[in-house]
Amino acid sequence: MKIIGEKINGTRKRVAQAIAERDAEFIKELAQKQADAGSSWLDVNAGTHPEKEPDDLIWLIENIQSVVDTPLCLDSANPAALNVAIKAVNKTPMINSISGEPDRLEKILPIVAEHGCEVIALAMDDKKIPETFEKRMEVIEKVMEATRTAGVADNKVYVDPLALTIATMNQSAIIACDTIRAVHAKYPEVHFTMGLSNISFGLPARKQINRAFLILAMQAGLDSAIMDPLDKELVAAAITAELLLGQDKHCLNYVRASRKGLFE
Amino acid sequence: MKIIGEKINGTRKRVAQAIAERDAEFIKELAQKQADAGSSWLDVNAGTHPEKEPDDLIWLIENIQSVVDTPLCLDSANPAALNVAIKAVNKTPMINSISGEPDRLEKILPIVAEHGCEVIALAMDDKKIPETFEKRMEVIEKVMEATRTAGVADNKVYVDPLALTIATMNQSAIIACDTIRAVHAKYPEVHFTMGLSNISFGLPARKQINRAFLILAMQAGLDSAIMDPLDKELVAAAITAELLLGQDKHCLNYVRASRKGLFE
Repeated sequence: MKIIGEKINGTRKRVAQAIAERDAEFIKELAQKQADAGSSWLDVNAGTHPEKEPDDLIWLIENIQSVVDTPLCLDSANPAALNVAIKAVNKTPMINSISGEPDRLEKILPIVAEHGCEVIALAMDDKKIPETFEKRMEVIEKVMEATRTAGVADNKVYVDPLALTIATMNQSAIIACDTIRAVHAKYPEVHFTMGLSNISFGLPARKQINRAFLILAMQAGLDSAIMDPLDKELVAAAITAELLLGQDKHCLNYVRASRKGLFE
Repeated sequence: MKIIGEKINGTRKRVAQAIAERDAEFIKELAQKQADAGSSWLDVNAGTHPEKEPDDLIWLIENIQSVVDTPLCLDSANPAALNVAIKAVNKTPMINSISGEPDRLEKILPIVAEHGCEVIALAMDDKKIPETFEKRMEVIEKVMEATRTAGVADNKVYVDPLALTIATMNQSAIIACDTIRAVHAKYPEVHFTMGLSNISFGLPARKQINRAFLILAMQAGLDSAIMDPLDKELVAAAITAELLLGQDKHCLNYVRASRKGLFE
């Protein structure tokens, strides 16, 4: 289970402030903590000002790379910003994200292909999230046709099945898990990722829901997540699910985590 | 998700002591607390002294029934004890358990059939737990042939797929879940139950493992468990899994549990 550390995200108020004020120490600390907690990538999102996005992204990348060497996950739908950012990174980044939206495929996929990036592919089309797993699968089939045509290997693609809040859609977790199973059956090399917290939007005790959802999604085949690596109980849920899903030989990782106090 | 309250079990030291000393208050309190916590059945196990078992079972049943009217789950492999106990219960009990063991089928199944009981059927034969889900399925097919022949309706049968500790068998949770799926596919009316805690035997932070295992087993189809209804975090995991598995209409049960402080 690989973690894409989610905390450096300019749509979050405190991060937006740090970007606006060029508070490098704040960003460096977020990077260091997430790397120390075992993130495989650090998501970098410069926020929602298209005109400032390239500069802000470069500033974020430079500061993050000054303290850690964890690969980055460039989180932007703006090809101009991505094209600038990709020249600033020290290691091949993941790109977050493409989808079935033709404009996004056309402008972002070439960047992915040219630089040999991993890429997150959302199971949605033109900003609408399909309500059934069959329709999400159709979108992913279209996306996979495009990634293959562009020369992107299947194992570079991380499908995000997307989870709507269970508060308004009873079957939301089931649909996300069924999407993972269907995509995995057809494209066995493809990886999966997901932002976990949408599932609990509008409900109380959200972390309780997010943790259980992570376990269910891992059973379906989720092998990475965009999450807070500092959320001890969420990380504990991931390590426990790996144990139960037969992915932790001799229980070594679980026992080690227990000794470190993760389950206390 | 229905709970079979596990606490009145004479193989536990404190309960054995209460039985030996005829400490009725201790037993009544265990019964009351488990009933208040929402148990659908209370397991009653008089311990491991065959000669004393009928008397001890009657004493337990009478004391439990003096405070609660929750149906009981008579936990004994001793036909003589069961035959006596079944005359002392106010409501039709569940019987825990039969298995593929011919002797047990022959002696206990007639009691189940005669009294219209629910019955737990272990996926094991002659005391050996098969190592693959296919072999557990073979045992259950034999058991189902016997229950059907005896006139026990499929929906009275609660299959326990059995979980060995993951400490010595990496695939243990997967095998238990696969057994549930296979039995459900062939016998859609059959229910499932399981003692959850075996899975974590010999490992640290056992409750962490048991909770995650409950979530995974519920995804596979587990609809009841032999568990401690006073374990707040385990009950919370069950309610959260129901929410995510689309079994909690309008999230009412989850929100109610949150208001009661279950997730704090």
